[in-house]
Amino acid sequence: MKHVTHSTSLDALFRPRSVAILGASDDPTRISGRPVRYLLEGGFKGPLYPVNPNRDTVQGLKAYKTLADVPETPDVALLAVPAALTEQAVRECVEKGVKGAVIFSAGYAESGEEGLAIQKRIADVARAGGLRLLGPNCLGIFNPQIGFFGTFTQSLDKEMPGPGPLGIVSQSGAYGSHIAYLARQRGIGINYWITTGNEADVDVAESLEWMAAQDDVKVIMAYVEGVRDGERFRRALALAQANRKPIVMMKVGRSEIGARAASSHTASLAGSDAIYDALFRQYGVHRAATTQEQIDIAYACARGIFPKGDKLGVVTLSGGAGVLISDAAERYGLDVAPMPEAAQTTLKALLPFATVANPVDTTAQALNDMNLLARNMEVILDQGGYDALLGFFSTVPNTRTLSGPLRDAIAKGCERFPDRLIALEMVADAAVVKDYEEAGFLVFEDADRAVAALAALVRFSRAFDRAQAVPAVPAAAPLAGTALSEHAAKALLAQAGIPFLAERMAADARAAGEAADAIGYPVVLKIVSPDIEHKTEIGGVLVGVAHRAGVEAGFATLMERAAGHRPDARIEGVLVAPMAGKGVEVIVGVSRDPVFGPAVMFGLGGVHVEVLKDVTFRLAPFGRDEAERMIDEIRGRALLSGVRGAAPADVDALAELLVKVSEFAAAHRDDVETIDLNPVVALAAGEGVVALDALVVPRAADRAGIEA
Amino acid sequence: MKHVTHSTSLDALFRPRSVAILGASDDPTRISGRPVRYLLEGGFKGPLYPVNPNRDTVQGLKAYKTLADVPETPDVALLAVPAALTEQAVRECVEKGVKGAVIFSAGYAESGEEGLAIQKRIADVARAGGLRLLGPNCLGIFNPQIGFFGTFTQSLDKEMPGPGPLGIVSQSGAYGSHIAYLARQRGIGINYWITTGNEADVDVAESLEWMAAQDDVKVIMAYVEGVRDGERFRRALALAQANRKPIVMMKVGRSEIGARAASSHTASLAGSDAIYDALFRQYGVHRAATTQEQIDIAYACARGIFPKGDKLGVVTLSGGAGVLISDAAERYGLDVAPMPEAAQTTLKALLPFATVANPVDTTAQALNDMNLLARNMEVILDQGGYDALLGFFSTVPNTRTLSGPLRDAIAKGCERFPDRLIALEMVADAAVVKDYEEAGFLVFEDADRAVAALAALVRFSRAFDRAQAVPAVPAAAPLAGTALSEHAAKALLAQAGIPFLAERMAADARAAGEAADAIGYPVVLKIVSPDIEHKTEIGGVLVGVAHRAGVEAGFATLMERAAGHRPDARIEGVLVAPMAGKGVEVIVGVSRDPVFGPAVMFGLGGVHVEVLKDVTFRLAPFGRDEAERMIDEIRGRALLSGVRGAAPADVDALAELLVKVSEFAAAHRDDVETIDLNPVVALAAGEGVVALDALVVPRAADRAGIEA
Repeated sequence: MKHVTHSTSLDALFRPRSVAILGASDDPTRISGRPVRYLLEGGFKGPLYPVNPNRDTVQGLKAYKTLADVPETPDVALLAVPAALTEQAVRECVEKGVKGAVIFSAGYAESGEEGLAIQKRIADVARAGGLRLLGPNCLGIFNPQIGFFGTFTQSLDKEMPGPGPLGIVSQSGAYGSHIAYLARQRGIGINYWITTGNEADVDVAESLEWMAAQDDVKVIMAYVEGVRDGERFRRALALAQANRKPIVMMKVGRSEIGARAASSHTASLAGSDAIYDALFRQYGVHRAATTQEQIDIAYACARGIFPKGDKLGVVTLSGGAGVLISDAAERYGLDVAPMPEAAQTTLKALLPFATVANPVDTTAQALNDMNLLARNMEVILDQGGYDALLGFFSTVPNTRTLSGPLRDAIAKGCERFPDRLIALEMVADAAVVKDYEEAGFLVFEDADRAVAALAALVRFSRAFDRAQAVPAVPAAAPLAGTALSEHAAKALLAQAGIPFLAERMAADARAAGEAADAIGYPVVLKIVSPDIEHKTEIGGVLVGVAHRAGVEAGFATLMERAAGHRPDARIEGVLVAPMAGKGVEVIVGVSRDPVFGPAVMFGLGGVHVEVLKDVTFRLAPFGRDEAERMIDEIRGRALLSGVRGAAPADVDALAELLVKVSEFAAAHRDDVETIDLNPVVALAAGEGVVALDALVVPRAADRAGIEA
Repeated sequence: MKHVTHSTSLDALFRPRSVAILGASDDPTRISGRPVRYLLEGGFKGPLYPVNPNRDTVQGLKAYKTLADVPETPDVALLAVPAALTEQAVRECVEKGVKGAVIFSAGYAESGEEGLAIQKRIADVARAGGLRLLGPNCLGIFNPQIGFFGTFTQSLDKEMPGPGPLGIVSQSGAYGSHIAYLARQRGIGINYWITTGNEADVDVAESLEWMAAQDDVKVIMAYVEGVRDGERFRRALALAQANRKPIVMMKVGRSEIGARAASSHTASLAGSDAIYDALFRQYGVHRAATTQEQIDIAYACARGIFPKGDKLGVVTLSGGAGVLISDAAERYGLDVAPMPEAAQTTLKALLPFATVANPVDTTAQALNDMNLLARNMEVILDQGGYDALLGFFSTVPNTRTLSGPLRDAIAKGCERFPDRLIALEMVADAAVVKDYEEAGFLVFEDADRAVAALAALVRFSRAFDRAQAVPAVPAAAPLAGTALSEHAAKALLAQAGIPFLAERMAADARAAGEAADAIGYPVVLKIVSPDIEHKTEIGGVLVGVAHRAGVEAGFATLMERAAGHRPDARIEGVLVAPMAGKGVEVIVGVSRDPVFGPAVMFGLGGVHVEVLKDVTFRLAPFGRDEAERMIDEIRGRALLSGVRGAAPADVDALAELLVKVSEFAAAHRDDVETIDLNPVVALAAGEGVVALDALVVPRAADRAGIEA
């Protein structure tokens, strides 16, 4: 199911045939001289047009007084001019018909109101003239395949990155440079690199979408502080998932201080961090906690093998390492499953001194006969049923006599299984590492990092397999922008398939009594008013009312309490409801994220949500699988499986409810602010779920107007 | 409060004046030749006596036919002989009066019953002869200060470690070699290294205790699979804490597979993993999750500066890095506190383009004037009140022109603050890293790893400050080895200061009624029998009995139920108790770990313990501070602070209860198997706590006899 995006307007920025450099300096160490230097050193495969009114040549190239003087229309213009001259330069680009311009200078949206105004003006000029803008306040873009280095980043000073399977998208220029450097150091080539800075036009969402559509991108690293176009960002992630392109994401701003620092760094209207988490889970994006993890996983992805299952075979020269790796595997969710008995017997015959269950500890004695080691690995791969194999070899590959023979033995043991991922833990000099990598192995200096990366590959594999396009839910007729009473909210949600108790509205005491007779005792009575959101706080709910007289008296009590607390409230009457069955109380809610729209929350009731924050989110809408993943994700999941002799809860019905809520929320994406179903009782398996209360808060019409 | 251990009998093993090598080979690549090679290359500062019946010289040294022929009594003998000859060699060592012997060969306890028997016999011979044994099945011991390399580890093949502040204790030879190699690679010198293998005599506990007492050990790395002598291990950790020696621990076997792999690797009787966690928390040991983390933290400790507080100043050249570091600081519990206003004003005057709150983002422009950068760091250290400073410099130190000036600027900015810990994130060649380290900075390639290490140092600092000797609790009169009824258990624990309700035993219905009259209604009635552990399961508890008639009828009901379910049970009567006040239900328990003795468990009641496993442990006994840390450690801690309008619970009284339980458990360390106080109600602050139920299971006399 290969999707192709229709966003091709970044092609010129990523693959220009010709480049002009406005403000190009002859001094290759200056910011305005470095791009010329890098383009020359990188061997750009097309004409370069330095523009400098004061010079005939720039770094040996013929220079032009103005952009207009350039003999052809360059695809891309790099604007290495001061901020004050940028607006004029953008106009000149438009006049010349340039397709893309990169603005390096700072002093725009990040510097205050005035800068923001200039930035908007520049963006308007570009948009009107069909010019795509990168930046301002960015470090640019590069594509080593064609030697295009449209950047002044200092990090290329010592060495230029070569081409390869990696694409990098970063809102921060410094971070983008940092990971590009680390990637090169780790031997991962880069085909495309883009830093989006203030995002006056090209943003991180569009860049990701573009990369996700490229055949020559095998893995994407991204750095994101905040996203403006939530819908496009989501579409980009969905496209990457569908095209089986792993995204390894550094999304910063998780902590409070971090979020503050992020907003001082860019002017992004950031979605809440929990929503980003939800989104990444939904589309199988790996959110890295550390830069090292981000690089490790991108490195592993670059190999292009994504294990189908989570079974990990482990071979070590030391029992201790086997224990360590088993612990790590459990932490990261890989299964160090034992070898089949027959295979263990075979191995034991080969290496009588070995521990053969898995981890297989050959002990250092295996190094005495490399053929045995090779045969040992072959048996493990052939009969163990493992999706990936991790070998722990410590410093052995770095010893002069053993390095080559060990590499060859492992290669021989693995040669019949090219689809299996082979990772090695080893501590060795760079040249030795490269040598082992070229023999086809992933190399990690730390066993824990190897396990973490393998686990991430398994998650990617599963996420790719479940890829589906963002479901389209047609917008429903908008709600009136006023608060809904419980009764009205329930009626609305019931139409959408949310199960409630068979309740009846009663306008007077007698009607309440009749309703209760019909329902059967005991019953619950609740005051109904669009003006009273939290009924229990004013004593507006009576539980376990056992007979008709009680119901009629209760009606009067509720009226008195409502009048006492909120004399102005519009009272619609009293809801008479049966008592709910026994079950596990959960909470389902919807809140509208300003960037990403409605998100559905799920958690267990009471302290689980309020104190333990044991909740999970997904963006609406989503399907049944995603709902099940939500349910399985909460820490208190076991409570739904039946504890202390309770029956297991109806998890199927609960998943169905989550799907329905997500569809309702998506249909009302523009006009619902929040929904609360609290509590929802998950009855015993087969008996369904039932929401006892419902609150729907429409989005105030004026706010909808402002934000839309 | 410098303690000195009295265990000096390892001195000869760690600092021999002369060494014999039994079975020494002339071939320096063989296992039996490598120790000779390493001792020669390491320049051992005393006489070496190779013993080899077939040669006159070994690797250029005069060889002796037998140990008896050696002209003096060597301090240490390395036994590089086959397993079959080891027992005889040990006898010869005893006859010669050797102080310590190292047994390299395998084939003992780890290989089965027969090997275990031989190992025990050898240990008996050594013990009787005053000979200390290291091993068998170990990689030996080394001390680079005197060139003593009593090991055949392959990892010294390319380069020998130099002396330095690190001590390494490892049960696994391969892991010990691995981390020694990594430490050398990271530039950390090693003064002592020991691998204990099968621990026939010298074990990990004694080795740690010895290292903790050495002035020339500043940080200890340890690898542990299981501990046999729990008491000595605990004493060793306490000594290290008192002597302000950080222990960075890799304790493997956390996962189920890991624990299985560990027990196949050694024959340790391992304590449960949760108990190790408790112990490490109690004595301020850092338990590393990964090898990399272990090395990082040892590296940071080696500098010898342990920040007093948790305030972290951050300087970056990029806003993105600041956000990343803020997120990491929150994750690891460091406080990226803002700069005081006045200091911000000063900084803003220095660097108008900078973000100055903290993280301080100087932007790359600060590199244009290194004096400004130096001044900037000085202001942050002088006025920010930070305990440590982290600078993020990415690849800048690796650029030719900026590397030296940047290093000097940072050094200048920090020179007035030698007590402050300065860590730098930078990606650079090894020589550049060394250059910066020699200027006094910790260098990390990854910002997250730097933050993790700094946070560990802060925890060490706090743990050192609260160090106290293991409290001595005299053993109490032992309990009879039979089950106790609830009433008897409560009476016993009440004597130890545990608060219970004012309950009364009643032997008949009338006495129950009178007791209830005296207590006041409503009351709770409970059947009392040493044979009924779980009263609620047989309906043996009646709650909220409101009047005398109900009490008398209830008495009869309980008797009937007991007789119906357990006709053989000895019935002591019925307990009449007042209803407990409202509060938060918690659980306090004691269980006896076979290695470490009684451990106290604390958690919130109900699902918190059973489903969410939100519990914490400490070894008994402990003081008030430790009890408070336990309470603060549980995820649901907020429930004790009052949620949904509830009053905060009496945390002081709860801490006191934990201390009392720990003292009782310690006094009965040999004769109590488990204690359950479930539930304990923590009443509102100032109103105390009260245990509603108590179960004490004494240790069966026969089991106590077997294990003791």
